[in-house]
Amino acid sequence: MKAARVFRLSMAHPGDLSALARLIESGTVAAADVVAIIGKTEGNGGVNDFTRGYFTQTLMGLLSRHLGKPPEQLVREIPCVLSGGTEGVMSPHYHVLCISEADGSAKRHPSALAIGTAFSAPVAAEDVGRRAHVESVATAVRAAIAKAGIERPEDVHFVQVKCPCVTVARASAAIAAGKTPLTNDPNKSMAFARAAGAFGVALALGEIGPSDFDDTSLLSNFSIQSPRASISSGVEVESNEVVVLGNSPSWGGDLRIAHRPMSDALDIGGIVRVLADLGIAASPQVSAADARRIACVLVKCEPDRRGKIRGNRHTMLDDTDINAQRHIRGAVAGLVAGVIGDGRIFVSGGAEHQGPDGGGLIAVIASQQEG
Amino acid sequence: MKAARVFRLSMAHPGDLSALARLIESGTVAAADVVAIIGKTEGNGGVNDFTRGYFTQTLMGLLSRHLGKPPEQLVREIPCVLSGGTEGVMSPHYHVLCISEADGSAKRHPSALAIGTAFSAPVAAEDVGRRAHVESVATAVRAAIAKAGIERPEDVHFVQVKCPCVTVARASAAIAAGKTPLTNDPNKSMAFARAAGAFGVALALGEIGPSDFDDTSLLSNFSIQSPRASISSGVEVESNEVVVLGNSPSWGGDLRIAHRPMSDALDIGGIVRVLADLGIAASPQVSAADARRIACVLVKCEPDRRGKIRGNRHTMLDDTDINAQRHIRGAVAGLVAGVIGDGRIFVSGGAEHQGPDGGGLIAVIASQQEG
Amino acid sequence: MKAARVFRLSMAHPGDLSALARLIESGTVAAADVVAIIGKTEGNGGVNDFTRGYFTQTLMGLLSRHLGKPPEQLVREIPCVLSGGTEGVMSPHYHVLCISEADGSAKRHPSALAIGTAFSAPVAAEDVGRRAHVESVATAVRAAIAKAGIERPEDVHFVQVKCPCVTVARASAAIAAGKTPLTNDPNKSMAFARAAGAFGVALALGEIGPSDFDDTSLLSNFSIQSPRASISSGVEVESNEVVVLGNSPSWGGDLRIAHRPMSDALDIGGIVRVLADLGIAASPQVSAADARRIACVLVKCEPDRRGKIRGNRHTMLDDTDINAQRHIRGAVAGLVAGVIGDGRIFVSGGAEHQGPDGGGLIAVIASQQEG
Amino acid sequence: MKAARVFRLSMAHPGDLSALARLIESGTVAAADVVAIIGKTEGNGGVNDFTRGYFTQTLMGLLSRHLGKPPEQLVREIPCVLSGGTEGVMSPHYHVLCISEADGSAKRHPSALAIGTAFSAPVAAEDVGRRAHVESVATAVRAAIAKAGIERPEDVHFVQVKCPCVTVARASAAIAAGKTPLTNDPNKSMAFARAAGAFGVALALGEIGPSDFDDTSLLSNFSIQSPRASISSGVEVESNEVVVLGNSPSWGGDLRIAHRPMSDALDIGGIVRVLADLGIAASPQVSAADARRIACVLVKCEPDRRGKIRGNRHTMLDDTDINAQRHIRGAVAGLVAGVIGDGRIFVSGGAEHQGPDGGGLIAVIASQQEG
Repeated sequence: MKAARVFRLSMAHPGDLSALARLIESGTVAAADVVAIIGKTEGNGGVNDFTRGYFTQTLMGLLSRHLGKPPEQLVREIPCVLSGGTEGVMSPHYHVLCISEADGSAKRHPSALAIGTAFSAPVAAEDVGRRAHVESVATAVRAAIAKAGIERPEDVHFVQVKCPCVTVARASAAIAAGKTPLTNDPNKSMAFARAAGAFGVALALGEIGPSDFDDTSLLSNFSIQSPRASISSGVEVESNEVVVLGNSPSWGGDLRIAHRPMSDALDIGGIVRVLADLGIAASPQVSAADARRIACVLVKCEPDRRGKIRGNRHTMLDDTDINAQRHIRGAVAGLVAGVIGDGRIFVSGGAEHQGPDGGGLIAVIASQQEG
Repeated sequence: MKAARVFRLSMAHPGDLSALARLIESGTVAAADVVAIIGKTEGNGGVNDFTRGYFTQTLMGLLSRHLGKPPEQLVREIPCVLSGGTEGVMSPHYHVLCISEADGSAKRHPSALAIGTAFSAPVAAEDVGRRAHVESVATAVRAAIAKAGIERPEDVHFVQVKCPCVTVARASAAIAAGKTPLTNDPNKSMAFARAAGAFGVALALGEIGPSDFDDTSLLSNFSIQSPRASISSGVEVESNEVVVLGNSPSWGGDLRIAHRPMSDALDIGGIVRVLADLGIAASPQVSAADARRIACVLVKCEPDRRGKIRGNRHTMLDDTDINAQRHIRGAVAGLVAGVIGDGRIFVSGGAEHQGPDGGGLIAVIASQQEG
Repeated sequence: MKAARVFRLSMAHPGDLSALARLIESGTVAAADVVAIIGKTEGNGGVNDFTRGYFTQTLMGLLSRHLGKPPEQLVREIPCVLSGGTEGVMSPHYHVLCISEADGSAKRHPSALAIGTAFSAPVAAEDVGRRAHVESVATAVRAAIAKAGIERPEDVHFVQVKCPCVTVARASAAIAAGKTPLTNDPNKSMAFARAAGAFGVALALGEIGPSDFDDTSLLSNFSIQSPRASISSGVEVESNEVVVLGNSPSWGGDLRIAHRPMSDALDIGGIVRVLADLGIAASPQVSAADARRIACVLVKCEPDRRGKIRGNRHTMLDDTDINAQRHIRGAVAGLVAGVIGDGRIFVSGGAEHQGPDGGGLIAVIASQQEG
Repeated sequence: MKAARVFRLSMAHPGDLSALARLIESGTVAAADVVAIIGKTEGNGGVNDFTRGYFTQTLMGLLSRHLGKPPEQLVREIPCVLSGGTEGVMSPHYHVLCISEADGSAKRHPSALAIGTAFSAPVAAEDVGRRAHVESVATAVRAAIAKAGIERPEDVHFVQVKCPCVTVARASAAIAAGKTPLTNDPNKSMAFARAAGAFGVALALGEIGPSDFDDTSLLSNFSIQSPRASISSGVEVESNEVVVLGNSPSWGGDLRIAHRPMSDALDIGGIVRVLADLGIAASPQVSAADARRIACVLVKCEPDRRGKIRGNRHTMLDDTDINAQRHIRGAVAGLVAGVIGDGRIFVSGGAEHQGPDGGGLIAVIASQQEG
């Protein structure tokens, strides 16, 4: 029986994988058990955020030395989902997701964390943000669910997808080749790519059907949303990379995952509820003992595109100095970290179609062992 | 008997005082009752934040038309304390602090909000951030307390000071005149000015004595702190402007103020406690009915200068793209707004010597009438 | 006979009109002679740049005191065209354009600087960036040319238009009223507004005909361009404000204007040529004596949307930290200021359809008196 | 007889060394000939610029595969001097400096480009920006000159030093160890490190003597300057890395170097003069044929700390949104690129004590073969 383990590790800079290196060297983690990485690096989270590529290169170099496979192969086998931007109280960190044989002597829970991963084929520049992109994501998500062995759709709690986007250079190359990219504005391209990812998750989970949308629905029909989708987009990937997290009775191990939508950026209730789902109280902050049970906090959020939060004007979208995604990440991370009592949380912006409009979602992985 | 009233008003842009204009035109507020303004404008909060000057010019023009006094006189009579930067979920707004005759028929509380204001003489560029600056602030704070008629020092809950700082141009002029400004780095100057303000408040409140510090203590000896001081600094003022807020048995009206330190940027407990001091529960969020009782939320915060929050590295101080004060304001505002359920909160960075190192303080003014 | 005069004045901050106040008080300028202002303020040049509104409010207050007209009226009579952003070596300054009676005893030139101004009706949020906007601009440009008394189209050298754009708040209000704004992305709206302005100038000057374009041509068909159009866009105006500058034999005075396209951001040749048109050499820099002849330097520029300059990749469009318009203004201003030897130059980004794609234009006003 | 070669290569992103890989694979460059790299990456050039570390890791990985030495060793043998920030028209690129046996059949010049490199021991956090740091640099510079075999001091034209600086984390660690770093403000630390580098170059070249300065002279006595020093500072190095460039009669090859001070940010004359030193005219721009002769353009610049350029106020130092070094790099690069006609130029900010105050220097390497 398989068991999932999650290690939350800090880094001193985006090329610092020393914490993982120590775990491997000490034998706590076998390099071959590493199936995915989800982390926050201290870049700007935008098109020109190279901290993600730097981390990935370093990670693949480390694993390559231990596994004897070339980095170019590993990068197509192990999803490395990084969100740039540790605004405010966030602390740069990464979660190492591992699958190993369950400890037969450990207490068995009715259901435990299950992990599945998949890669799509590369997405052409002219397909980014369009139906072909949506379908490419959906296919990969279905493959990852199957790989995780999760049978009931409601047991899927979090689907992380890293989607490629289009830089000015890639757009120009596509145009030169007679293709028509959706946009040559890279920030816009990142947004459409995230929308395609969310639609792909919704399609794979049966939340929408193939005829429920067309190209014009993306970034337009916000009634279409998947409250379990978490999509990042970046210049450093060419394929969709998928990590599915859920619970399954056929997995061993001690961890469990829960998720809740966040109705808006002030929805502290959503945070408290997802913790309660895991038997953890926040009154107002999680206790030190319970905090040790928490292995991973995953949040998506979005500056409300209508320009107001609960009736009051916000200024995130009119700011030419600071990107709106940086604003919202910093604010929502401030709230979540305050409830959890820890800045090592994955808060990612760009939640288009991922949970309620102007809001997002929160998922937490915690140990089922109390105390 | 005097009574204090506080109106929290929104603005569409930094030159938009239309909400106050309407209150004056409708007779709700008499222009002569306005004694101070505390607000958040949507600038960057730095040296080149001109939203504060723009708002002030507009305000003084409005009051001038109603009071028949020239704006140049009003600006030296009515403190207009603005903090730039509405990062994240904050909404641009301003509090109009008014003093009028108490309504004799209204319920009388044992103690109620008292307000006092004062202006110092202009601070020379070479004095900014030094002992002369500290003493100038202390004198003004004492005058404001006397004016408020607050007799017990422990009844002072919040002392807002707006201090002048030094731009490159002002520093150059001082140097040309043979003077030696503390620094010609404007952001550094703002920090020293805030430190001088905090020392001045501590001195006036008897928290420190005249021999407890010298010039080198500012921005250096962080054991010196005033948990009731809130200091802003900006290029648009030449004098220290002081607003003292406390409770007094000799004031009528319905409002009361409380304050608490925040031990760090994750101290949700401090927020919940100050609300509890006013009989307001947050479980996890203030109810809509209680939210209507809240007239004003005032917060100071600071990126921990040791580079860590509860042992985890933060990246605010190493960021060349976004000023550290913008980072911390966005994060702490996210937390406070999530508990209060409202983005119209005054969260100001630069809390050097104002509350615990790496933390700050929160003060709340609320109605004493339940429901 | 009328004569145009141009005063280039410095400001200490965006609310500092003291230099103009002194000129008026000394009698050098009569307040009634001021017909337009063109200037650079030290904001970010983006949607949330309030330095323009602050300057305008201060200017109109000053003129109001001298002219006895209310500021609300003056703001609809005197175009105040401000471009935010004094990146790099640019120095905040403004040009006061005046029309007065020519000095009969002064030397008469065959042709001299002529100025005309006009205002359109307000542009509805849903019209911004569409044909109705284009036609509104064209009508105003024709009116300004007529007012300047310029008879030959080729004698028009520079048409400055300030166009309204749409903030998130304005877009939301329009949507609530059942209208469909072109975009609710404010930076996008500014770009479309600038395109509409350029099309309007081209239409008014006969460079294009009414059937040469439709709504989809804006920001799409870049073969449509007016090498004499300079368009700014900002949240603080609701009408199109037009200033036409040209030469006319029926005007007196000493000044003359010339213009040249700039083929790209490295086109130092265009700068040297426009100076040569006015009899000024730059070898490599304008001499101090000739520099004193220069009254005004006006430049439009644009980050090449194809992502390359002369075959080499630039990074302006992929930068999430610094807005691309800020990048290009700083670079082109560095070049122009180096040739002129002075940082008081008006360099404005957002040159869509204003001169060659990826380039822009330069216009210079100089005295015809040598030495 | 040795000969120096310089290859100027473009990169698609900071981890893209494919152009060098192709040169090695094609045999144009032998990996063992590479002695130093000088380049511009598209980060922010500040403390949190990780594009430099990313590039360096990729470079050392590439060379390691060809040379069979571990990257950890190569990084201590081959200076990789990267300046972050390709503001405005700059294009990300790197110069590969190679030394190989001179082609005996090629034309012999009286003097030709000579290259020498050296590394110092690591600099302790508490030494950064102090005399120990200065002396460490001077020793390394002398070693590099000796290695280059340059006998006359006046034949040294450019000394590039990359100095370590102190992050908040490093400063905290030093303090915890009982040491006293000069500052824990990382941007300040970078400035002091650059000053130490410039003093070290001046000391090594005999421009100053050991008794001409003490710790307080750095960033204070700006009459001390080395017009041949170019200092970068970054978090990714712990030692001083030195590259000396000069001319020598004992070297073969076709290249030659010249340098000139730039008196301020508008000094186009300095640019034209250094080109003239190499027999290249700019009237106003370098011709396409001459542009092909240019192998490398190296510029240092600095926002004038007195807040004015030629009497006009600039706003770089008062800007809380954009770092002053980014401003000045963009402006000066705009000027230099306009004269050269090419954006592949190394323009680095932070020119404290490197050339005239408020100015900097320019060095150019060009072929001695005409046409």
